[in-house]
Amino acid sequence: MEGTRLRILEHLQQENQTVGGLATIMGLAPATVRRHLDILQRDHLVNFIEVRKKTGRPEYSFRLTEEGQESLPKSYDLMLKLMVDEMGDLSQEDMNGMDGQQVLRMVFQRMSAKVAERFSGDMALLNIDERVAGLLGALSNNHFEPVAQNVDGMFQIKLQNCPFRSVAMTNNAVCDFDANMISTGMGVSMTQISCISEGQPCCVYQSVEPMTVDLGV
Amino acid sequence: MEGTRLRILEHLQQENQTVGGLATIMGLAPATVRRHLDILQRDHLVNFIEVRKKTGRPEYSFRLTEEGQESLPKSYDLMLKLMVDEMGDLSQEDMNGMDGQQVLRMVFQRMSAKVAERFSGDMALLNIDERVAGLLGALSNNHFEPVAQNVDGMFQIKLQNCPFRSVAMTNNAVCDFDANMISTGMGVSMTQISCISEGQPCCVYQSVEPMTVDLGV
Repeated sequence: MEGTRLRILEHLQQENQTVGGLATIMGLAPATVRRHLDILQRDHLVNFIEVRKKTGRPEYSFRLTEEGQESLPKSYDLMLKLMVDEMGDLSQEDMNGMDGQQVLRMVFQRMSAKVAERFSGDMALLNIDERVAGLLGALSNNHFEPVAQNVDGMFQIKLQNCPFRSVAMTNNAVCDFDANMISTGMGVSMTQISCISEGQPCCVYQSVEPMTVDLGV
Repeated sequence: MEGTRLRILEHLQQENQTVGGLATIMGLAPATVRRHLDILQRDHLVNFIEVRKKTGRPEYSFRLTEEGQESLPKSYDLMLKLMVDEMGDLSQEDMNGMDGQQVLRMVFQRMSAKVAERFSGDMALLNIDERVAGLLGALSNNHFEPVAQNVDGMFQIKLQNCPFRSVAMTNNAVCDFDANMISTGMGVSMTQISCISEGQPCCVYQSVEPMTVDLGV
């Protein structure tokens, strides 16, 4: 994927955009943006809907297709490997009285606990700012494209990419993976207030209690 | 991946090669092959070992690195999706008395049975040559790069690529997927006589009973 076109895809992943909107954000001529969009459209990575305005010509709002979403970084291989390993380690007792959905949830929670353990080490020695910095690094390595923000006295972690997107769209048990990774990594309860698998542009996790994190660490 | 370099990776996947060997197979000048190999080596997709000969200069045998293997087509997304779906459908009774490894094997067998069902339809109406043709198409679609061959009165299906390679290398329960897909798709018992996860270049399945298939269908 050529540099500019990859950046266009990343912008569209966050929000649908018109040619003019993309040109402004990216500091490019509208004709240049249009040429790249034509190529992306030919390759089935973007499409558009017409937006009628009260006056003047209609505008076109460009957005990613499912194929476009899938062309952004994914971690299906990692997830499958972790899942097969974790499943294989289960004993008969671990699954006692559970149905498949319950076993799935347990497996995703164990997977994320292991990943969280790997990056947080001895968490008791770290303060919250340091924990968040470690968590953001681990989420980045796994292609979640995380952004941390303090909003109205609450702390939020926004995930701009779902590395398991096509699986999450059909079974959100996989969402337990990042939910648990975030709560475990921070040692603080976080609740999901927005989810890609429900059609929203980002997954957002927010602290249950009011809190502010120093983002300069 | 540029055309010639992709073809070099595919040849190396089947067998380690010298510059001269690749040049002969591909009908290219050795200097051209060497230039492409330099680029692939720079990108960590191939490396080489020195092969000493009785006389003359030593030769270099090129081979894929694990990164090179992973750069060839994979289906981790499909496998993960099928696995999550199949797991979620299990009832408590389905898993009764099983440990994790047993549940894994059951899940992979059900997954492949479903895939086999999808391409074989009402198999009773098809003769063996038609079944094999359908099976080869389905294996191709899933990036197994299958080759069918009659060897010494036995029928073989050779898979030149493992679309779940990095997972199979650590847990060969996933091999049940293709093993079962092949036996179910043919309606004939086939046994695995070679496996990529055990370090061999291809997975080979062979008919248990002597048989020959018309490969012209």
